[in-house]
Amino acid sequence: MAADGRTAAQNAQLALLLEVAGTPKPGNVDREREYDDLRFEHFLAGAVGALPGLERAAAGEPVGEAFEHAVAGMSHQRGGNTQFGALLLLTPLVGAASREELSPDGARAVVEATTVDDAVAFYRAFEHVDVAVADPPAGMETLDVRRGAAAEDAIRERGLTLADVMETSASVDGIAAEWSRGFPRTFRAARSVEPDDGPLTTRASALFLALLASELDTFVRDRHGHETAVEVRDRARAALDGSEAPDALADELVSRGINPGTTADLVAGALFVGLERGLAV
Amino acid sequence: MAADGRTAAQNAQLALLLEVAGTPKPGNVDREREYDDLRFEHFLAGAVGALPGLERAAAGEPVGEAFEHAVAGMSHQRGGNTQFGALLLLTPLVGAASREELSPDGARAVVEATTVDDAVAFYRAFEHVDVAVADPPAGMETLDVRRGAAAEDAIRERGLTLADVMETSASVDGIAAEWSRGFPRTFRAARSVEPDDGPLTTRASALFLALLASELDTFVRDRHGHETAVEVRDRARAALDGSEAPDALADELVSRGINPGTTADLVAGALFVGLERGLAV
Repeated sequence: MAADGRTAAQNAQLALLLEVAGTPKPGNVDREREYDDLRFEHFLAGAVGALPGLERAAAGEPVGEAFEHAVAGMSHQRGGNTQFGALLLLTPLVGAASREELSPDGARAVVEATTVDDAVAFYRAFEHVDVAVADPPAGMETLDVRRGAAAEDAIRERGLTLADVMETSASVDGIAAEWSRGFPRTFRAARSVEPDDGPLTTRASALFLALLASELDTFVRDRHGHETAVEVRDRARAALDGSEAPDALADELVSRGINPGTTADLVAGALFVGLERGLAV
Repeated sequence: MAADGRTAAQNAQLALLLEVAGTPKPGNVDREREYDDLRFEHFLAGAVGALPGLERAAAGEPVGEAFEHAVAGMSHQRGGNTQFGALLLLTPLVGAASREELSPDGARAVVEATTVDDAVAFYRAFEHVDVAVADPPAGMETLDVRRGAAAEDAIRERGLTLADVMETSASVDGIAAEWSRGFPRTFRAARSVEPDDGPLTTRASALFLALLASELDTFVRDRHGHETAVEVRDRARAALDGSEAPDALADELVSRGINPGTTADLVAGALFVGLERGLAV
């Protein structure tokens, strides 16, 4: 039982909800902006459905299976991929928290303990929902995550654990990078939401903008190319230094369909760490 | 397992979240309006915390205890009373749904089966959070709900079940009236959110306005008096017929601190019934 009477799984669910409630978060669905086919209500239903999978992670079940279960529950709404990346980030953190080791080392230990079965379950998770990902490198087509369960033989032949799979993508995917490096951006970001100064959703929005300005969003890069990812990062910097209005930037990015999902996932992860450390709501 | 893979308890949690996400809902916290000390994030945390109590109701545990547990979980945030009334409405409905009898008769059967222990647990729930209620009638001071567990002897002496307690308040409290009459407004309202025509949170907002225009909100009457409750009802009618702008009315009621909580509770109840009947998110 964490601070404020919530379990680690409940704090992860609350982190998902607080993340989507932060506004403005340029390009993302938030309380005041949504896409016709990806709405605020889809994120609410995603957070409701994900809880049983998060509870499995908290109970010490294998990370891969817990994640797949969370994604399956999340997918019970019509918006499609609402929180796939956020759940991928949260699942090992919930596992670490339930062992009372919510630290970079504790999270790293959860990652290092993953098995080939975890990798297979991770691939299966892609069958529940369409996820935008980059094409695999040449020669790695049999390991394309979009193959889902069909990739099982290729995974087992190579003896890849889920940690190995993440390592392969760490240079191109922001969440895989967190997995492979002890979740440095997540833990650092958690500190920035901890000061108890006003609505938590306002702090979540400020954190989103700071993270967006600090590195390229890999979800934007996969879907819209490197140049757009650079533009988004630079304009987030302009919003931070006051030379661009965050609300106008948010409206524009939504109208262009540019949704910095990886940055939102990091916000959810940071909120979770904060809540576990006693952040009051 | 209900439609879309959600359990009855999960649908109740989702109903709480969809209710608060509907905007505008004149006077209530919604996605675009909040009070300094009662914010959107408090409702999110309330819905997260309430789930274990709702799961007890779904498991067939006594309604009073399940409700008290839900309220205790809801109270783990700093906004105070976020969803007390909504949980009071939802708990027997979840109980009925889990018996596959989610109908006026099924809900009535759950109410009629309540015991003196349920009444005692209901009173205990008032210890977890401050709830605005009317003073009890003369001679009934020992049964003031605000006495919490201290009222136990008075309840047991009189042999009052929770159904009896609700019957006593049915003429002055909108939720107690639902309990005592087979939840007529809730089931009727559920039909109005069922047509699959656009965002569910928009339908929730439209339903809120229609309910507010149809009867006096008893929470407003308790806190602000009969005259204000009449004004709110009449202005909701004006908003419905187009002679007043709903958003401006919402801003004004929030600035005056007039929060039609009972009407919001009914919306949550209606959304739950709709979700159980297959309303897609």
